[in-house]
Amino acid sequence: MSRRVTGTEIERMIQLLAKLPGLGPRSARRAALYLINNREKIMAPLASALGDAYEKVSVCSTCGNVDTLNPCTLCQDAARDQSIICVVEEAGDLWALERASATSGLYHVLGGTLSAIEGIRPQDLNIKGLIERADVDTVNEVIIAVNATIDGQTTAHYITEQLKSCNVKVSRLAHGVPVGGELDYLDEGTLAAAIKARRPF
Amino acid sequence: MSRRVTGTEIERMIQLLAKLPGLGPRSARRAALYLINNREKIMAPLASALGDAYEKVSVCSTCGNVDTLNPCTLCQDAARDQSIICVVEEAGDLWALERASATSGLYHVLGGTLSAIEGIRPQDLNIKGLIERADVDTVNEVIIAVNATIDGQTTAHYITEQLKSCNVKVSRLAHGVPVGGELDYLDEGTLAAAIKARRPF
Repeated sequence: MSRRVTGTEIERMIQLLAKLPGLGPRSARRAALYLINNREKIMAPLASALGDAYEKVSVCSTCGNVDTLNPCTLCQDAARDQSIICVVEEAGDLWALERASATSGLYHVLGGTLSAIEGIRPQDLNIKGLIERADVDTVNEVIIAVNATIDGQTTAHYITEQLKSCNVKVSRLAHGVPVGGELDYLDEGTLAAAIKARRPF
Repeated sequence: MSRRVTGTEIERMIQLLAKLPGLGPRSARRAALYLINNREKIMAPLASALGDAYEKVSVCSTCGNVDTLNPCTLCQDAARDQSIICVVEEAGDLWALERASATSGLYHVLGGTLSAIEGIRPQDLNIKGLIERADVDTVNEVIIAVNATIDGQTTAHYITEQLKSCNVKVSRLAHGVPVGGELDYLDEGTLAAAIKARRPF
């Protein structure tokens, strides 16, 4: 706002909300008004949830996931398949795979990908921890579930190379037509990969 | 999330963020990850800003605006034109008019519109306070800046009727073509109003 309309606390709240992904200045104001109109039901619980999360969130020392527990909820879950480690770039990817119930194994969060342009080297990622975990007898398979970007694939190749010393199977996600996707809208690379990896009906 | 992936604090934060207008479950998760990745810079300040706002926000006893001061920042501002009161439905409308620097007068927030369907009667709105404020000698004009909806216009007519006893000019917002708007996309009502209220070049 160009002129000062409200007390500083509300201005500050709007400015911070506007920094969240998916919210801009306009939607941050709408969100702030909604919070003000729902002080007891949303504003107070959100303030305390943020405060609690701020106090408690840490990076899991085993897998690199973010959680309020350390080791994280997933690493502590004895019901999960301890023989599989699924490698992802970010905690958000882990959450996405969990929502899909895609694997019942453990995870390993790299914290990014190798990148020549951004100067991210192997030692900047959580790769050493992965090799140590994969070198344990109980682990049979490492699924590399990084993004299908150039940096992601470079990282996948590097990790595969590093894992050769461990006695594990290394696999990657399948390429193909997204479920519900229309061929007409897909790029040539995906279509070629889908044909190449075709399956008997 | 169907299965439990994170500690309860993060889950609770996501659930509350998802209730904000403009955020759904997916964008709330993205926002939560962004907050977790920016603990010091965004998460902690937002938690305290929300807490502060929760403690301090109240409805201005003069105009009905929401603010951390009472009387609110605008009512306390002696530089504003004390002879004009601009009547709006919600605090969000007031903020929008202030961003446009549309008036330098005072405001009055009704807290909604009359509505037969939702059973909102004159006594449910902040109309009595408006009549009292308009009845003071310093006030010359009341601008009714309610939405151009049926309920808004009903409310405007009701207020105009009530203000007859006060010695004030009552005006309403002009109808017409929005600045930057294309005629082809406008409804017939707006076009007819714009022609009717045409101005010499």
